[in-house]
This record gives sequence, structure tokens and C-alpha cells, in this order.
Amino acid sequence: MSSKNRLIYLPLGGSGEIGMNMYLYGYGPHGKERFILVDAGVTFPNMDSTPGVDLIMPDTAYIEARADRLDAIFITHAHEDHIGAIGHLFSRIPAPIYTRKFTGAVARTKMEEHGQDSRQVNVIGLWPEMVSVGPFAVGFMPVAHSIPEASGLVIDTPVGRVIHSGDFKLDPDPIVGEPHNPALLREIAGQQGVHALICDSTNVFSPLPGRSEAGLRADISALIKQASGMMVATTFASNVARLKTLAQAGVDAGRSIVVLGRSMQKMMDYANFAEVLHDFPPTIDLEDARDIPRENLMLLVTGSQGEGRAASAQLARGKYRGITLREGDTFLFSSKTIPGNETSVGGIMNAFSEMGVTVLDDSSGNVHVSGHANRPDLEEMHALMRPKMVIPNHGEHRHLREHALLAQVNGMASAIAPNGTMLDLTGNTPEVAEHIETGRIYLDGKLLIGAYDGVVLERIRMATRGTVVVSVMLENNKLLGESWAEVLGLPETSAMQMSLQESIEKAVDQELEKANQRRRSVDDEVESLVQKVVSRVCRDLVGKKPVCKVLINRLVD
Amino acid sequence: MSSKNRLIYLPLGGSGEIGMNMYLYGYGPHGKERFILVDAGVTFPNMDSTPGVDLIMPDTAYIEARADRLDAIFITHAHEDHIGAIGHLFSRIPAPIYTRKFTGAVARTKMEEHGQDSRQVNVIGLWPEMVSVGPFAVGFMPVAHSIPEASGLVIDTPVGRVIHSGDFKLDPDPIVGEPHNPALLREIAGQQGVHALICDSTNVFSPLPGRSEAGLRADISALIKQASGMMVATTFASNVARLKTLAQAGVDAGRSIVVLGRSMQKMMDYANFAEVLHDFPPTIDLEDARDIPRENLMLLVTGSQGEGRAASAQLARGKYRGITLREGDTFLFSSKTIPGNETSVGGIMNAFSEMGVTVLDDSSGNVHVSGHANRPDLEEMHALMRPKMVIPNHGEHRHLREHALLAQVNGMASAIAPNGTMLDLTGNTPEVAEHIETGRIYLDGKLLIGAYDGVVLERIRMATRGTVVVSVMLENNKLLGESWAEVLGLPETSAMQMSLQESIEKAVDQELEKANQRRRSVDDEVESLVQKVVSRVCRDLVGKKPVCKVLINRLVD
Repeated sequence: MSSKNRLIYLPLGGSGEIGMNMYLYGYGPHGKERFILVDAGVTFPNMDSTPGVDLIMPDTAYIEARADRLDAIFITHAHEDHIGAIGHLFSRIPAPIYTRKFTGAVARTKMEEHGQDSRQVNVIGLWPEMVSVGPFAVGFMPVAHSIPEASGLVIDTPVGRVIHSGDFKLDPDPIVGEPHNPALLREIAGQQGVHALICDSTNVFSPLPGRSEAGLRADISALIKQASGMMVATTFASNVARLKTLAQAGVDAGRSIVVLGRSMQKMMDYANFAEVLHDFPPTIDLEDARDIPRENLMLLVTGSQGEGRAASAQLARGKYRGITLREGDTFLFSSKTIPGNETSVGGIMNAFSEMGVTVLDDSSGNVHVSGHANRPDLEEMHALMRPKMVIPNHGEHRHLREHALLAQVNGMASAIAPNGTMLDLTGNTPEVAEHIETGRIYLDGKLLIGAYDGVVLERIRMATRGTVVVSVMLENNKLLGESWAEVLGLPETSAMQMSLQESIEKAVDQELEKANQRRRSVDDEVESLVQKVVSRVCRDLVGKKPVCKVLINRLVD
Repeated sequence: MSSKNRLIYLPLGGSGEIGMNMYLYGYGPHGKERFILVDAGVTFPNMDSTPGVDLIMPDTAYIEARADRLDAIFITHAHEDHIGAIGHLFSRIPAPIYTRKFTGAVARTKMEEHGQDSRQVNVIGLWPEMVSVGPFAVGFMPVAHSIPEASGLVIDTPVGRVIHSGDFKLDPDPIVGEPHNPALLREIAGQQGVHALICDSTNVFSPLPGRSEAGLRADISALIKQASGMMVATTFASNVARLKTLAQAGVDAGRSIVVLGRSMQKMMDYANFAEVLHDFPPTIDLEDARDIPRENLMLLVTGSQGEGRAASAQLARGKYRGITLREGDTFLFSSKTIPGNETSVGGIMNAFSEMGVTVLDDSSGNVHVSGHANRPDLEEMHALMRPKMVIPNHGEHRHLREHALLAQVNGMASAIAPNGTMLDLTGNTPEVAEHIETGRIYLDGKLLIGAYDGVVLERIRMATRGTVVVSVMLENNKLLGESWAEVLGLPETSAMQMSLQESIEKAVDQELEKANQRRRSVDDEVESLVQKVVSRVCRDLVGKKPVCKVLINRLVD
């Protein structure tokens, strides 16, 4: 190993996937690098691969082993996939946290919720303000996104300036927060352009330039003017700009606005605290709304992704805080359905349809814009930053690959670095330095467990195959009484001659009778015999191969 | 109840959902109607709501109770969501089956696979050929769709002509099978228009007219010409027209064609049997393909929906029938990803991306057209048929509602009839006659079980909560030895002082010791005591509330 200083980049989450962002930068000789961490995000479980899991976050083992060399944590913005793990993981990777004001308010809440010291969260201003951490100086570069005060990072390193874009779009009028500012970006890029651009890739397959938040108000207002009954709209709670757009569009259409979602209210509180929310139209309380005719009302509610406990889902089931939708009302999804949520969102749409509620979404007109840079926007960012190399991050492998190809076509060096791929960025082109074992940590109930603990696999097995438990009592290696089987999640029909449970018990009893004394004296043998019987009976009778556990009680004379 | 004759329509599947089509038509006095059934389709399970289930089909209880009055079953086309249940359910609802030739070949195979008499499948020609069944005369009306010989039904009833559209698109050049034929449809509609049109609704939210299959060949060929290495394309096996389009486009681009998917080969065999497949380009065997440079090859494979066992998924994992994709090859999804399959299809795309294989799909150009009528196409069908009433079918509730509104706006009567809604179509407007209990039957392993048997719910519980089984032995109402717990799918950490299993066992032993003699003498009391202990320990230690089973063995003196 060389003792030369080098600049390294290591994605621990968010590269090779959308969500769960976590990136490590290091500088120094091999084994003695000083590190900064960018973002600590989560991703969400699903029944297919992670039933019962509450939250998924990156495995921080690599950092934990080098915790004494971690100088700071920077959080680019307050979306869950960038900030959601900070409270859960902070005790494993303690270091000063740096954010902007809005993000800091969210981060402090998360720290406190997990019993961590919220004073670790330091709020700093925008570039050219920089904080020095080890060999790095880092500043926040304002970008437009779908949450207040989203930022890229200007990371000055001994080998040159590195830009970590964070999630961004090029919106000249994002309604809340700083607009896309090409002049500022050019200033940051300087005469020569930057050394490296580590860049958001989620929308690389979207061929048209992104649209502005400012373009939505008139169109949404026109839709609302056509609506006759109550108007209800949902979007991400953290999309404060959209809340403002919706509220303005509602007021334009002559309606009083009620912000009904608690998490929306909370996000607006953070935004007010950060002083980024100006000219939000007047809103009224739900109590006062009861005296207003429904055709003059507009509610803003949570649950744009079909989340079962959110207001949208509750309204779809019938009632939320005393409000019931009815024939003639209109419900607007001012949002995009994240892949994987189609079924739950569709279920809500159908429930509204059954009530006679008109549902509007993306297919109804211009009601949503993405918070991410599309392909031409990425090219514009490349052109503004003029980096020696573009390292695509935040995207599935196909997004990273497409983005790398795009950069290469335009004459920049690039590399595909999925989670665990450590790149050496010291020279003029990125080089793969090492492959690090990465993984995921599951929050499961109260505990944080490793993704490969087998626990979740066992759950999937029980769910797809069913479970059989057999208890046998043996005295002097002879079956005492009869075996007892419990059957969970296995089919039966009334056409069967005896229940599956009885069939299993009878077969187990018979086979144990037949087995010789020696076999019955060894627990492992008894277990394997019973498991074989259970497999056979279940295969023959119901055509399934269940998970099988055997409990052997031996009476000692 | 009136003894007047009436015409009734009852969807048992496919209305209020996409998939699992099954519709009943009846005519006669209440309680004495004669029935015909249209389609017997399936839908597919998922981990969210139906883990471990193999297939889902409509509950036929309503028909079974009136089986003596069922005169015939008509199958509109051979897609699984219209034909997939025929073998499974035929013994419950036996009646002569009528189909066209291609569909008949598929139906016979399905009957034989389930030990049913395939001679029950009768192949008949196109309208004006009609078969008389009870009070009805029924003929097949050719429509374009994404499978050979798709058909609507012309159902002549004593109150007038009813058209059951089946799945259709208005394609003037569908490559395989009959083109959209407005003259024929006008002839069928007659001078006065038809009495009722029961009409496909899946694409009612698609605002533009559908495109023709014939438009794909040149565009796909252009994409293939740009590809350098091996070309692989996937689509639905039953979309024989697309297979031909792809093969032609491949030949246009100078490649030899290998039809690799077994189910594709089978569908082409059915199509040849039905004499609907003309001028399919020459194909070569895989063996011969090995001598051809990969840039001159094009493979057609199965697995467009990311099915784990299909060729696409196997190629993504590394190898299929000796073929390995590599850097520079191209994979084309000539298909649309059905909602719910995004994750599996995305996984395959990312795996190809890791291999350096270029993936093309809908976003790459004109590579797929839908088999269903879009909104303007539905309006054209309404205009051709001039029905007194339009009854939307095949769609989720929101599709049915939108389609009904569309018909009403254009001056036709309509009604939303989700599964179980019996409509009386006798008069000039549809009237809701009755609501019938409908449901779903699950194929689970070998058995057909009811959707509400609780079995699947128990699986979901085990998957989300984990499972604990405790076995206790009691002698004279006193615990003999120690309890034994088995823990499945629950988290633990090495930081815990003792394992979850030991903690449960210890707590159970303590509580059983403390319990009084009377409580220990009653199994229900022991069970409830143990369950409470398990709940408490699991909540405290791991924050989960598992499924808990208690096995009590009593030694009798």
C-alpha cells in the first residue's frame, strides 16, 4: 500500500438504489485518511423482501471501525432518504453534524427523539462560508429541490474542489427557497472548472428539461375552479413549496384553505423557523371550516403515497377528523406515485371512485413537477461545473450507468460506483481503489439488526409456505401419549378426510412407533424424522412444504 | 318477485379490478333464468395481500347453486385473465365451452392438464355463425387485441342484441388476425344500434387514440440496427403478432432469429394450428445459432414482466440455456410493465446494466402498443355500436366510473357494476337488480380455498410479527421440567443478556409457578397466561407482538 495522500469517495447507500443515501469522503495516506460523511438516509421496507421491518438504513460498519477519523457529518437536505437515519445511527458514528437552518431543525428533532444530543447539530450559512474539517473545507451550495434549503456541497480538498450535488433540479422559480442560480454555480466552478462532480442520477432517463414549480399554480387553480364540491389535495408534507402553490391556487379559485395534515403543519413550522416561507396564503382552522360551504373549501392532507395511516387513506376508508368525502367532491394527487406504491395509491383512488369523488392526478394536467434534474438538466449542470470527472450517485445501477455514459459522451471522465465501490479521485480520472463490504441495517421493532440475520428470510418462508410445529413427549425413548401438531397458515378443505393437523399427528405417531429405540434416543434423529413426516404429509395433502419446528420433551425417570 | 322475463348481467370477476374476468348473462323469470357464462380468468397473487398463494380465481358459488341452468361457457380469448381458470373450475360449473380455434387449442390443453374432458370445448366460426343456447344465440365478433383471434360476443337475447366487447383495440393492421373492421361492426349494430354494449374499460384514462402494431416494425428495426452485440427481445409469449413484428424487425436489421422461449414456441404452435400465423420470418435453432456471430443474432425470450423463472430473469442472473449476455449486447422490453411488477422488472434491468448490457424499453422509442382501446377508441366503439346503454367492464372502479361518465356525456345510459352487482338490462336503462356476494378462490398448493379462510391472514401475521411457539408439560397441574419456546422470524441482538428464547422460557416458568393450581388445571387459562407472558417479553425486549401458539402436554397419573 502506498503512503501517498489520496482523495477517496465511498458510497455506503444510495448508489445502486434510489433512497438511503450515505457517502463517505476521505483524504490522507491509506489507513490514515480523515473522513467526512454526507447524508444518513433511510429506505422503506416492503412485503416482498422485508416483511415486518420498520425501516432500512445503511450499514455503518466501515465507518464505525474508523470512527476516530470521522471529522464531520453533512446533511444536504431534510428528506428521509438523506436524513432519516441520523437519530438511529448517530451513537455508532458520533461526529459534529453540519446542516442549513431548515434541515438542522429537522435533524435536532430526530436526534432528540432518539435520545441523542441535539447540540451536535451545527447550522451554518451558504458558500462562500466554509467549515474546516480535517483536510477538507466544506460549504453549502443552494440548489432547488422539493424541500426547503436543499443544498449541494462545495468540498475543497487538497487535490481540488469537489461538488456533491445532492438532490437538485434547475428551477428558476421554485416558489420556496433559492432559485437555480447559474451565475453562482459558475462562480463556484471558477475559471478551470471543478475537480469532480458527484451528481444525482435519478431522472437521467427523463428526456425533457424539468418544469418549474411556478408553472403549476395557474393550471391547478383552473382545475379547482372546475370542481363543484369540497376540494382536497395531497402532496409530500415536506414539499412546502407545493403546499404554498396548492394554497395559492385554492385561494385563486375562491376557497378557504385548511392545512389538515399534522406533518404538513410541522414542516411549515420548520419552514417558518428557518424563515423561508413567505406570503403563504391565510389558512383557517378545521373548526372554522365547518361553517364554510364545502364548495368554498380546500383541504391539504398527507398520504400522497397511499400510506395506510395518513389522512388520504383514512378519508378513503370513510372519515378523517370528522370529515367525510361525498359525491361531487374532488381529490387531487399533486404528486408522483413512487414505484412500489401503485397498488396502495390505486386502492385509494378506487375507494374515492366508489364514493363518487373525482380523482385528479398527473394524467389530469400539469399538477406536479419533479424535484430532480432530468437528462438535459444534468448536462447543463455538467456544463456549469466543467468537472474533470462526473461520478453519478443516487440512482439504481441503470441510472448510474446511463449518467456515466452521458458524461463520457460529453468528454468528461466518469465511473460507475455502486455502494461499496471506493473510488480514488486523486488524479484526472476516477480509479476503483477497493471494494468494501456494504449492507443494510433493519430497524425491526426496537432493535437494529443486520439484513442477513436470517430473521426476515424465516418470515418470508413462513408467509409463503406456512408453518407446522410438532411437540412430542418421550419417556424412556418411547412416545408418551400422542404427538401434538400446530398448523399455521396452511390450507385445508372440508373435503379432506381428517384435518391436516390430525393427519400430521397420526403419521408422526406411526413413524415414531416404527423407528427403532436408538433413533428415538437421539433428539436430532427424532427431529429429522418428524420433519420428514411433516413434509410428506403436507406435500401429499396440500401440496406445500412448510417451515417445520419440532419440540421434543423427554421425561427423565 | 315478478315472474316477468328479464335480461340480467352479473360480473363475478374483472369489474372493479383488472384481471380475473368472469361474467354471467341470464334470461327468464326471476329464479328460473337460463344462463351463459363469459370467460373464466385468473389474477395473480402478491406478497402484500396473498403470500404463498399460487393463483386467484373468481368464486363460482352463485353459478354452482344454479349449475343446472348454465347452458354454455364462452371464452373471448386466450389470455390468462380470461381463460386461466377454466381447467381449475370446470368441474364446479360444467357446461359446453365455445371458443374460436386458437382459443380452443389453449382451452383444450388447460382442460386436459386438469383431467377434464377436452371434448367439452367446441370451436365455432365467426358471426354471422351463431350458436343457440337457451334463450340466447351467440356469435363471435372478431376484434383486434394482443393475442390471436380475440373476439367480442354478439349475444342475441329476446330483448335485443347485446355486445360483449371483450378486450379489444381498434387496430387497422394488427399484423396477426383480423383488423378492426368498422363495416362489420356497423353491420352487427344494424339500423337501430344494439341494445347494450358491455365494454372493456382498462385504458379509459389514456387520452390519445391507440397506435397500430404495424407502426412498430420500422422503429424497432432502426433500434436493432444501432445495436452492436447480441440482440435479445422479450414480450408476452401470447402476443404472436409482436413476435412476428420483432422477428421481422430483426431480419430487416440483418439478424437470424431464435425463438428461445418455450411458451412462445407453444403459442406459435397454437397459432399455426389455428392457421393465423402467415409469413413468419424463418427462424433458426439455438444449436445452429452457436455458429453465428452475436451481432447477427436476435433472440426472442419470455419474461417481460420480470417473472423469476423466465428466460429474461435467468439471463439477468447469468445464464439461460448456455447463453450469457455481455458488455455491448442489447436487451429490448417490447412490453409494458404491469403495475406491481416494477420492482422485478427494474431488478432485471439493473442486473443487465451491471453486465454492461444496454436495456431498451418504452422510454427508448416506439417499441410497444397496448392491446386495449384508449378513450377516443372507446368513443368510436360506442359510435359504431350505437347502444341504448354502455355497461363498462374490465377495469378498476375508477375505470368503470370514468367510462360510464364518458358514455353518459355522449348520451347513452350507463351504470357502474362492480363484481356482484346484478344489472337488469331489460328496459332502456340498466337497473341494479340485486347485489350478490362474490369473492375469490385461491389455488394454494394443491387446494382451492376461499379467500376468507384466514389461512393467508395468518401467513401475513407471521411474516410481519414473527411467531413464538411454547410447549409446556404439566403433571398434576404442576410444570414438569421447564417450558420450551421456539422463536421464528423475531429479531435478537448479541447485546441482549440472554436469548429471546431463554427470556421467554424463564418468564413462562416463573409465571406458571406463581399461577394458582386452579388456573393451571384449565388449558385455556394456561394458554392465555403463556400468551400474555410471550407478548410482554417480546414487546419489552424486541418491540414486536408475535403470533403465539401454546402446546400443552398433560401427563396423566
